[in-house]
Amino acid sequence: MRFHTRKWVKPEDLNPNGTLFGGQLLAWIDEEAALYTIIQLENNKVVTKYMSEINFMAKAVEGDIVEIGMEVQKFGRSSITLNCEVRNMRTRETIITVENIIMVNLDQDGNPKPHGKTKIEFVKDRLNN
Amino acid sequence: MRFHTRKWVKPEDLNPNGTLFGGQLLAWIDEEAALYTIIQLENNKVVTKYMSEINFMAKAVEGDIVEIGMEVQKFGRSSITLNCEVRNMRTRETIITVENIIMVNLDQDGNPKPHGKTKIEFVKDRLNN
Amino acid sequence: MRFHTRKWVKPEDLNPNGTLFGGQLLAWIDEEAALYTIIQLENNKVVTKYMSEINFMAKAVEGDIVEIGMEVQKFGRSSITLNCEVRNMRTRETIITVENIIMVNLDQDGNPKPHGKTKIEFVKDRLNN
Amino acid sequence: MRFHTRKWVKPEDLNPNGTLFGGQLLAWIDEEAALYTIIQLENNKVVTKYMSEINFMAKAVEGDIVEIGMEVQKFGRSSITLNCEVRNMRTRETIITVENIIMVNLDQDGNPKPHGKTKIEFVKDRLNN
Amino acid sequence: MRFHTRKWVKPEDLNPNGTLFGGQLLAWIDEEAALYTIIQLENNKVVTKYMSEINFMAKAVEGDIVEIGMEVQKFGRSSITLNCEVRNMRTRETIITVENIIMVNLDQDGNPKPHGKTKIEFVKDRLNN
Amino acid sequence: MRFHTRKWVKPEDLNPNGTLFGGQLLAWIDEEAALYTIIQLENNKVVTKYMSEINFMAKAVEGDIVEIGMEVQKFGRSSITLNCEVRNMRTRETIITVENIIMVNLDQDGNPKPHGKTKIEFVKDRLNN
Repeated sequence: MRFHTRKWVKPEDLNPNGTLFGGQLLAWIDEEAALYTIIQLENNKVVTKYMSEINFMAKAVEGDIVEIGMEVQKFGRSSITLNCEVRNMRTRETIITVENIIMVNLDQDGNPKPHGKTKIEFVKDRLNN
Repeated sequence: MRFHTRKWVKPEDLNPNGTLFGGQLLAWIDEEAALYTIIQLENNKVVTKYMSEINFMAKAVEGDIVEIGMEVQKFGRSSITLNCEVRNMRTRETIITVENIIMVNLDQDGNPKPHGKTKIEFVKDRLNN
Repeated sequence: MRFHTRKWVKPEDLNPNGTLFGGQLLAWIDEEAALYTIIQLENNKVVTKYMSEINFMAKAVEGDIVEIGMEVQKFGRSSITLNCEVRNMRTRETIITVENIIMVNLDQDGNPKPHGKTKIEFVKDRLNN
Repeated sequence: MRFHTRKWVKPEDLNPNGTLFGGQLLAWIDEEAALYTIIQLENNKVVTKYMSEINFMAKAVEGDIVEIGMEVQKFGRSSITLNCEVRNMRTRETIITVENIIMVNLDQDGNPKPHGKTKIEFVKDRLNN
Repeated sequence: MRFHTRKWVKPEDLNPNGTLFGGQLLAWIDEEAALYTIIQLENNKVVTKYMSEINFMAKAVEGDIVEIGMEVQKFGRSSITLNCEVRNMRTRETIITVENIIMVNLDQDGNPKPHGKTKIEFVKDRLNN
Repeated sequence: MRFHTRKWVKPEDLNPNGTLFGGQLLAWIDEEAALYTIIQLENNKVVTKYMSEINFMAKAVEGDIVEIGMEVQKFGRSSITLNCEVRNMRTRETIITVENIIMVNLDQDGNPKPHGKTKIEFVKDRLNN
């Protein structure tokens, strides 16, 4: 799994207990899943369809740095299934895992559209062609 | 299920497709689950432990009003399991469902603590005693 | 008066004194007035025209849960007058009151438009017809 | 009246009608009233106690620049009463007016405290002494 | 230099060290530069092209009030160069300085457009003509 | 240079011209510089001291994905100098560059403190020891 995006846990991200607000963390994951999919499918119009069960395994506190990892589980016809892990960057402790996030590729009218992809591609390889 | 909190979908809540950003919706659900639990367990210190699979069934667009429903599924010893549905308030169309959200009751040190509750209570009844 | 929307007072909602920022509270009230009106008048295009005097009666602190109540005071021809109370959900203590909030129903060009409503309606009754 | 703070109406400040969200405007006013009071009373701990009726006289749209004016109406013993006008900076059209905003000076325990001020002072004059 | 816009440093503006987040301060400066330029050039479509080196000279803490000053350094053909200082309003201590901020005047297609201005103008003088 | 954090340009990030608000971009850069430094210096308390000139080379629009790259230029005694580039992830076009960002390592009282580092380290290597 590749970990790219990092977040610094700031006061605005906390719940009243002084730990990272779970809802903020879910929003970060959803954004990362969307942009990861956009890059892979080379299509700006994608949507989150499904998330499998979510385990909150450890908390994060103010000043912590969390990193968000994504990995492709499966390429469907008009969808892609991702696997996500968020961890504390310093200790490598796992904060949250989501086994399956299904993202759907859409056409301009918002209907599912086949994406024609079957494996992970890197932008640098596309540009080198 | 009781639907209380309502949200007006504003420009700041949208993704670049012009529909309600899924991450924002998840953050709203997590906040509602937390405050519902705080009221039920009469304890300010609660934490989200688990969410079962999440289905995004319909989209919401700018100007829509969504309402968030919560219901207790089960009272555990130091936890409570909720069931959540978010729907479009005007059409009653379901936007998202989460079957099980497990919230844990914590003591001052952040460890699970028995809450002693076995059924739903309403604040007005507590105050009338 | 019916209390629907609830807010969990989080760090991002505080002023530098560590209490709920009054401006945030006013923003929550204005949003609730708008969406309440949209539902009643069955029109997405409404605007806040007037608020009568606002009394800040009690403060709220981090971790408090506040609930926002709205009630129709009067149905005008192209307007609706609401009455609002915000209270601390646990103690039922009143935090703020606004006697009259006048919301105006607009047509597509932004001009006042008669709404034809004379009494409160519930969405479930409309859908049952 | 002196107009100091200016705001650029950005997408995040809009309601779903595409005009400046009234709640955002009220939040800006409340912040300006607080910081104006802090400067005048030379005390960091102040609170909004009361706002007289609020008239929304004109709308603002994306890209507009609004400026917020404050003026002291009256110095009380432990309070100060302000008068506020918000206007469109380019056209000088009035957007909103609030005749009286009562701000209260607090001691460390949050109780009203006499402030000893009877007239407007400017920071540069204080520093010149 | 004229200081107009003031900001109250609230919890949402802090970094995890409890001081004003530098990124927030830079965002405030960029907004002020944009709106100052819009007013001077009487054109809504302007863009930040360049900022010279930025010195963070003092920190600000929660509850501080900062004021943002702007001054025209030079009128170019399709640009304007500003000078910026942010200071602590109570102590007049300088928090940050930016010697040159170059803002560019754009036409509807986003290309540089001559603005025809050569000196500072005040809105009230324009309106008096 | 390594590019880690990615951002999806959402409506809340736009200026009124419909392009990415420069202030938001600067805030993202400052956060990335801070967290990169925290990881390298293994100290939570760091502060931005200086940024060299900033060139806005290309705009980004709604739906674009930008990635933020950081690289160490120099290890000082109590500081670290970074080099930053932000680019459009799909096209690899450069959006902004900042040659030198000086971050300072602080002790608990907020004074500069030697950090003892002389070369880049990776968390995985530290954990493997």
